[in-house]
Amino acid sequence: AASIGVGVVIGWFSRPSQKEEVPTEDSSIQQKLMDIMNKENIKSNLKHLTSKPHIAGRENDEIELVNYIENEWKTNGLDNVVSYPYDVLLSYPKQGDSNYVAIVAPDGSESNISQRKEAVIDPVQDDPDVVDPFNAYSAAGQPEADLVYVNYGTIDDFIYLNRTLSISTQNRICIARYGRIFRGDKAKHAQQYGCIGLILYSDPANYCVPGKGVYPDSWYLPPTGAQRGNLKLERGDPRTINYPSIATAWLQDVNKTSLPKIPVTPIGYIDAVKYLDKMSGPEVPDGWAGGLNITYRIGPGFVGSYANSKMKMSVKTANEVKTIKNVMGFIRGSEEPDRYVIFGNHRDAWIFGATDPSSGTSILMEMVRGYSEMVKQGWRPRRTLVFCSWGAEEYGLIGSTEWVEEFQKQLLFRAVAYINVDVAVSASYVFKSRGVYSLRKLLFDVTKSVPNPDQDEVAAGRATVYDTWLARDPSDSTDPIYGSVPYFGTLGSGSDYTMFLQSVGVPALDMSYTYDYTLGVSSYPLYHTVYETFDMVTKFVDTDFSYHLAMARIWAEAGRRLADSIILPIDCRSYAVYLDENYESVMAEFGDRMRNHDIDTGIISSSLFLYKLFYSFHHFQQLSLQKLLNFGVILRGYNDQLMQLERAFLDQNPLPGRPVYRHYITAPSQHNNYGNAGFPGLVDSMFDIDADPDQDGRWDEVKRQYSILIFHILSAASTLRNPVPM
Amino acid sequence: AASIGVGVVIGWFSRPSQKEEVPTEDSSIQQKLMDIMNKENIKSNLKHLTSKPHIAGRENDEIELVNYIENEWKTNGLDNVVSYPYDVLLSYPKQGDSNYVAIVAPDGSESNISQRKEAVIDPVQDDPDVVDPFNAYSAAGQPEADLVYVNYGTIDDFIYLNRTLSISTQNRICIARYGRIFRGDKAKHAQQYGCIGLILYSDPANYCVPGKGVYPDSWYLPPTGAQRGNLKLERGDPRTINYPSIATAWLQDVNKTSLPKIPVTPIGYIDAVKYLDKMSGPEVPDGWAGGLNITYRIGPGFVGSYANSKMKMSVKTANEVKTIKNVMGFIRGSEEPDRYVIFGNHRDAWIFGATDPSSGTSILMEMVRGYSEMVKQGWRPRRTLVFCSWGAEEYGLIGSTEWVEEFQKQLLFRAVAYINVDVAVSASYVFKSRGVYSLRKLLFDVTKSVPNPDQDEVAAGRATVYDTWLARDPSDSTDPIYGSVPYFGTLGSGSDYTMFLQSVGVPALDMSYTYDYTLGVSSYPLYHTVYETFDMVTKFVDTDFSYHLAMARIWAEAGRRLADSIILPIDCRSYAVYLDENYESVMAEFGDRMRNHDIDTGIISSSLFLYKLFYSFHHFQQLSLQKLLNFGVILRGYNDQLMQLERAFLDQNPLPGRPVYRHYITAPSQHNNYGNAGFPGLVDSMFDIDADPDQDGRWDEVKRQYSILIFHILSAASTLRNPVPM
Repeated sequence: AASIGVGVVIGWFSRPSQKEEVPTEDSSIQQKLMDIMNKENIKSNLKHLTSKPHIAGRENDEIELVNYIENEWKTNGLDNVVSYPYDVLLSYPKQGDSNYVAIVAPDGSESNISQRKEAVIDPVQDDPDVVDPFNAYSAAGQPEADLVYVNYGTIDDFIYLNRTLSISTQNRICIARYGRIFRGDKAKHAQQYGCIGLILYSDPANYCVPGKGVYPDSWYLPPTGAQRGNLKLERGDPRTINYPSIATAWLQDVNKTSLPKIPVTPIGYIDAVKYLDKMSGPEVPDGWAGGLNITYRIGPGFVGSYANSKMKMSVKTANEVKTIKNVMGFIRGSEEPDRYVIFGNHRDAWIFGATDPSSGTSILMEMVRGYSEMVKQGWRPRRTLVFCSWGAEEYGLIGSTEWVEEFQKQLLFRAVAYINVDVAVSASYVFKSRGVYSLRKLLFDVTKSVPNPDQDEVAAGRATVYDTWLARDPSDSTDPIYGSVPYFGTLGSGSDYTMFLQSVGVPALDMSYTYDYTLGVSSYPLYHTVYETFDMVTKFVDTDFSYHLAMARIWAEAGRRLADSIILPIDCRSYAVYLDENYESVMAEFGDRMRNHDIDTGIISSSLFLYKLFYSFHHFQQLSLQKLLNFGVILRGYNDQLMQLERAFLDQNPLPGRPVYRHYITAPSQHNNYGNAGFPGLVDSMFDIDADPDQDGRWDEVKRQYSILIFHILSAASTLRNPVPM
Repeated sequence: AASIGVGVVIGWFSRPSQKEEVPTEDSSIQQKLMDIMNKENIKSNLKHLTSKPHIAGRENDEIELVNYIENEWKTNGLDNVVSYPYDVLLSYPKQGDSNYVAIVAPDGSESNISQRKEAVIDPVQDDPDVVDPFNAYSAAGQPEADLVYVNYGTIDDFIYLNRTLSISTQNRICIARYGRIFRGDKAKHAQQYGCIGLILYSDPANYCVPGKGVYPDSWYLPPTGAQRGNLKLERGDPRTINYPSIATAWLQDVNKTSLPKIPVTPIGYIDAVKYLDKMSGPEVPDGWAGGLNITYRIGPGFVGSYANSKMKMSVKTANEVKTIKNVMGFIRGSEEPDRYVIFGNHRDAWIFGATDPSSGTSILMEMVRGYSEMVKQGWRPRRTLVFCSWGAEEYGLIGSTEWVEEFQKQLLFRAVAYINVDVAVSASYVFKSRGVYSLRKLLFDVTKSVPNPDQDEVAAGRATVYDTWLARDPSDSTDPIYGSVPYFGTLGSGSDYTMFLQSVGVPALDMSYTYDYTLGVSSYPLYHTVYETFDMVTKFVDTDFSYHLAMARIWAEAGRRLADSIILPIDCRSYAVYLDENYESVMAEFGDRMRNHDIDTGIISSSLFLYKLFYSFHHFQQLSLQKLLNFGVILRGYNDQLMQLERAFLDQNPLPGRPVYRHYITAPSQHNNYGNAGFPGLVDSMFDIDADPDQDGRWDEVKRQYSILIFHILSAASTLRNPVPM
């Protein structure tokens, strides 16, 4: 049945008779680059960057920090430093009358009113520029209704409540704990299931570990901490989907965007417990109880003396158009100035942002200084380096999205790779990364060459970052190419890599030093709270900044290899592995049902032939450096094919219902923007399909998506074929 | 108001101190290539190609001619010859019970029955493989209703009838004369205005010239001639919009496609006059009368003894899935095998196709032979040459569309240009061309170097093809770059260049030798009739094939320069001229109304700054050949920018309601697929806007389209900027 003609793979060149290693350049360059950066600079960068709250759209970030970064980079001597401003839709709470929730009695009196601000624990937090807890892009409103506990607010949670338990969430206020999925999806689900308000809270089960204490004694979340964060599902300015918010942009009416129509606001567990311990209704099912010392009940409504009371929310969050800025620095490539290796980190923080994102910014600044120093000493990369300080990432990747939209054609044809560091160091347990599989080997190689900042691990014989990565976070399967490897994740839409990959097919990486995920906490606990301060970092995260330095070295070297290597370090074989992993996973979940609906799943499995093609192409890389250099324009053509591979997975049409995502192999998950879906068009088409009354229509769409997926796999493979024929 | 920052244009290199001509290569190559091709071969090619009717989807074309071409090209020694088959939806009349129209009396008796076949004038036309007159993709049906004459069936004609004359076409059969616009748009309009059937006929006013006689005495249409042709508005297989019809393709239900829902069939004027001379109703307005010796009336219905009779159609045209094939030949580029210069011509004909398309195929075959000979003699182009013999063009560009869809990623990144020749020679009056403006200079230069096949013109001192082109078809304005130039048209969707330009942004050209347009005929008169035979060509079109040879030389040399020139002969300055021409034309028609709706039209006019940018970029081409060759990869980057310019006009979203057209600067016209619209998104948004009750909604869409247009102009300009920054 499979029509995928295998065809004879004729490489650009005949195979070499003997295998040599991929040629790299003078390895002393890496040593110089690593040595040139230092911890003290990173520490003082972080101190400076976190000296004030610096939320997007306001002066501390868009003027003071923008000027600071521009000046530093100009002083460093970059070839160009350019700021790209955009007027975009942001959102703020009404300072002085900020959001709260309460229990309201039949006579209208309010009790158990939640804190409008987090408690000041360190005097630095007593700053008028601290924005009170809120969820950006919430609708304003003062709904009153019975409360229902919806666990994490996932789509499965809502289906379970409404379908299995038959407890309606219609016209009720829901309370969901943070964790598992992107909060914007919680709001989407709540709205979809008829809720008129949503309270988000941080449960100790997800942000504390019993016996470990809380901030200021440790790194865990104190009761008063409330997680800020946006609720927007579209990327970028919601008024300019697919286009940049430049001065001539047409602006969609805000009421016609997909922004939430219901009020949503976050609280700490100091307040959540007051409502949860008064709830009526059945006890929650297995897995729904959090860590508060109460019996978790679903509701609806309260018991006892509160039985006639309702939950009330007071949300005055409002949208505002503000100017945000991206600062870009450039080091021009000597041989291929029109090939870009892009480093990105966002600048804006909900408050001080000592972890998110300023840990990343502190190393970005030091990396730029280091690179500039190298250039002063006579070195120059083969390809152009672009350093990006993004604005308004916290508002849903606004700065990076608008910029990618503005320069989509240049990036489509010229960008080699994008390497993102958002939170550089949230803890010191292990290095982690996610991205497209074709960049795995690069990152494995780089981390093998960077000294381990963990001295205990070094003493235990694990001398490199890679060694601890492999030891503490191994992949649970043996890789067919590389054997035993560390776990390498896939990209959702949690940071600024999103539009590079999803809109223009630029291979992307994201990385950080982080905590032990087996602790079970949903993010580093002080995430998006006022407690993310410089002192917190120096006390609990990275006392001497050696982990920050290691991150700077990994980031810089990964980019340098992408910029300097004669052949791009994009391992196309690894994409074959990724396709196969997705195939196995989709078949495990849906294979039988697909076959029952006359879908020939053998067609995809026969795409195993791709291995041959991808492997064959890879062999070119075994030629000697001297030979490669002689190829000139031919070599550029070979590298172009490596770039085209990722682009071939983009469709001319976006994924159904998702106007900015065009990558049909890997995309943010439909029900969790932070998560990833492999084969997203196909998988989304089968979501909850058994419950759909229109079985024929749904399965026809599955068949359509299956056909599109196969087309993109064939299309990608064909980009690697000998260009004559095609 | 304009936010279009002019910015300092820093070229890749400093400007040269002295201007030299664009370096070209050894000019003896052109001479050799021109000399190697000969007229006798072209003539015998045409004889062979037209020996049988060869409609798409049937053996004469898909097997016999495909094998012939494959064998010839293999024998010639091309580096590769590959056939690409697709199973697609075609359409045929029911042979033996083919379509007719008639007058039906109240008792059901039929009179004035139209001819089911064209008369046999030359015995060769008495061939069982001749397909009877029909319109492909018509619905089947036997409607009976009053007849209404709708002139050309343009959107303006229907608006005039229904709005100004208040004559409804609802539930009536319309009769429209061929000409002015694509017949598929006539069917679309008829359907949109409620007609239940459409008769198309060729009026002598459009296909004859009084006193000049008709075939077999001359080149003009005899009364029995009926124009075949398809009615499909989508490009390619209508079941697989945006995707190739490969074996794994998902197929849209035919009933859900945009194929016509009403019966449509063509007749000759021998029959049309019988219905038109019996019509009742008012006389037609100015400009609506054709050339028959009758008083043209609108109807509805007939007069006199036919007053109670109706028009009847009997249409049994039906869709069929058939295998069609593209044959591709390749000559591998020596320096840049992954850069494609593509020559295309379709192979399928409605019948013998001696003009359309076999005049083109006859020179394609000779051109391939000529190029192969050059390769045997040791020459090889810098870039790869691709020769395409498309299948099923007559069915709405099916072969080329499916292939472009299948290889869209390769073409997006690698195709330098596409040069189409469909009808190579329909007459010997003048050479004509249309395409993207950036290829104008190339074609001017090439035609200046090709000897004039018109000996009278040579005697009059016009030695080259260009000289007669300029003399007989001058542009009505002086070009700001080139001064006095011949008229150069823009591309609609009349042939296989469409998807190259509209879907993947490949600069495209189309050209032919043709007749004197001031004669007022709507196409060469025997177009798509059984009379397009080899003998007709030798008698009335090109007795000694010297015009065919001239076309072969132009085609071959235009492609050779695109393949061989060190710098791509893409003149970006000319795009600035094109933008300006469109700006002037849109402003003349809509400027006041736009300004009345608060649209700042000054923003586009300030795009005049683009001249500076486009001109500045062009200066690089003034460097010496030796310098250029030294640049290597840098030179490739420069050429890449020239390729990116066209791609920057493509939007991530197709034009509204037109799922396969993505070019926002030049596209087939919304109401005439053969025509062209400059700034199509903007212009379409303002069509008939004054009559729309939703003024706010419509003008908001105008503003949105205006913003998108500006974005693409800025985006295109930015592709030409120094790549650092961006």
